[in-house]
Amino acid sequence: MQIQFLGTGAGMPSKQRNTSALALKLLEERGSFWLFDCGEATQHKMLHTTLKPRKLEKVFITHLHGDHIFGLPGMLGSRGFLGGSGRLDLYGPKGLREWVEVTLRISRTHLNYELAIHEVDEGTIFEDDSFIVRALPLDHVVPCFGYRIEQKPLPGKLLIDHAKASGVPKGPLLRELKEGRDITLEDGTVVRSRDVTGPPQPGFTVTILGDTRFTANAVKLAQDADVVIHEATFDQESAQLAGPYGHSTIVDAAKTARLAGAGTLIANHISARFLPEDAEHLAAEAAQVFSPVEIAEDLAEYEWKNGVLRRLYPSK
Amino acid sequence: MQIQFLGTGAGMPSKQRNTSALALKLLEERGSFWLFDCGEATQHKMLHTTLKPRKLEKVFITHLHGDHIFGLPGMLGSRGFLGGSGRLDLYGPKGLREWVEVTLRISRTHLNYELAIHEVDEGTIFEDDSFIVRALPLDHVVPCFGYRIEQKPLPGKLLIDHAKASGVPKGPLLRELKEGRDITLEDGTVVRSRDVTGPPQPGFTVTILGDTRFTANAVKLAQDADVVIHEATFDQESAQLAGPYGHSTIVDAAKTARLAGAGTLIANHISARFLPEDAEHLAAEAAQVFSPVEIAEDLAEYEWKNGVLRRLYPSK
Ligand SMILES: [Zn+2]
Ligand SMILES: [Zn+2]
Repeated sequence: MQIQFLGTGAGMPSKQRNTSALALKLLEERGSFWLFDCGEATQHKMLHTTLKPRKLEKVFITHLHGDHIFGLPGMLGSRGFLGGSGRLDLYGPKGLREWVEVTLRISRTHLNYELAIHEVDEGTIFEDDSFIVRALPLDHVVPCFGYRIEQKPLPGKLLIDHAKASGVPKGPLLRELKEGRDITLEDGTVVRSRDVTGPPQPGFTVTILGDTRFTANAVKLAQDADVVIHEATFDQESAQLAGPYGHSTIVDAAKTARLAGAGTLIANHISARFLPEDAEHLAAEAAQVFSPVEIAEDLAEYEWKNGVLRRLYPSK
Repeated sequence: MQIQFLGTGAGMPSKQRNTSALALKLLEERGSFWLFDCGEATQHKMLHTTLKPRKLEKVFITHLHGDHIFGLPGMLGSRGFLGGSGRLDLYGPKGLREWVEVTLRISRTHLNYELAIHEVDEGTIFEDDSFIVRALPLDHVVPCFGYRIEQKPLPGKLLIDHAKASGVPKGPLLRELKEGRDITLEDGTVVRSRDVTGPPQPGFTVTILGDTRFTANAVKLAQDADVVIHEATFDQESAQLAGPYGHSTIVDAAKTARLAGAGTLIANHISARFLPEDAEHLAAEAAQVFSPVEIAEDLAEYEWKNGVLRRLYPSK
């Protein structure tokens, strides 16, 4: 799993930071990636990455402010032009369906794939064999969700000696066992997967929060998460603006990560008032409350592997 | 007057060319600029120019395809954030009003200025003391307009010797005469502006066409224009695609300019199939029919002054 930031700014695009979007890359896990928010020019940012719009499987929208959605119609159109033919699932607050449908109709954008729009409520909004996604409302000036993405435990390692001892021949049966299925040998013996594999490997949990004031639901969504991506529009000096505009300071973000016992905090949705050289100052404010903390930047990429989060770009 | 191209591509953004938008800069003439189409990320391109969204006075939309409008909601919002408080006039085909209103409502974009949306039909769509804008339908796969912008003749030069001879004292009365108004002297003598000024100076005419097949209305709009900006999605080799997709070849564009007796043709809306190094090939195809021809590129800027069009950027 990798996380790539496509837009880490607040409200309006600047030369440094685009409006909100990030990709959860699940290419090894499911051959696809998911997007969280899709501000204007997300597809343009993507031109500078290895992400292929045709591999976009799901889009989760936190809220309907323009800086989080105005890149969506273009993305939907381009996905089709660029060969995306599988179903796309779109999740977000009430109002998303009307806007997308009116926009596609008036712009005569004919999608050559199925678009399923889910207006979500709190609770489990997606689940399959390997992933579960939960949503809870946050505390912004408009309805806004946070999302918790949990990868289910992965099958344990195949204990090849145990399998051999149980009489399993080399070949496809081993794969069945490795993937968690019991098998029957030619002589009628049943070999159970759990007898020839190690303990399940934990999957990852990543929490991606929309715009919000400090709120208990953010802590709930972030509980024990490996990675929490939290907005941090303001610092302590500008903290008095956070409440009225429905945003957080970077210290609010750090408090949430601390209360949740999270692994790593990535601070996102950074106001244009902060220049690139202010990243250290922001990180220092957070570090008084929680560490490790990272300040997101456009095109930054992180990889989670075997329980460890590592920054791939920009290199340290 | 300057013309600056913000997006010169067709259909989808590429690294070289953004989706459609161009600015008609009328800063000397009226302290503002006008936009023609507003594809996604037009405001992002603008960050790399001297254009200020608060000085945006009018937006003309040729048609409602996504690559011509998806940057509009973000532009409207940012104009307000960045201090634009004067009225904005938006012109375009039927459907524009519904889309803009639904989009502003659902994204809770509250504009702090007046937005006047005009769904246009053929004919004169705007006129004041100094400009007249006419629209005619073109021949695309959806309703699509071309626009002809005429600057009205400018007052002739003040003939200072004539004015003196008529007894006009130095001071504000000279300005009145220069700007075309007759005056009455203290002794009751009426001095007519036309008697103390040279012949009116011609204004410019620029024709900006939306997506279209070769069509008579394009020639009408371009008649004797100083500058014609015409789409050129295809070349002769790919000409068989022009009809089905409702587009032109660069030779179609050149034919239009020739039939219209236009000054300069700027070919725009260039397919991503053409690489930057293909510009010469495209220009050569056009030049067999019409010259001078320019191949538009993103951020290219042209200036019209005293009847001459000059490219400011990129420099020759
Ligand atoms: Zn936001
Ligand atoms: Zn087009």
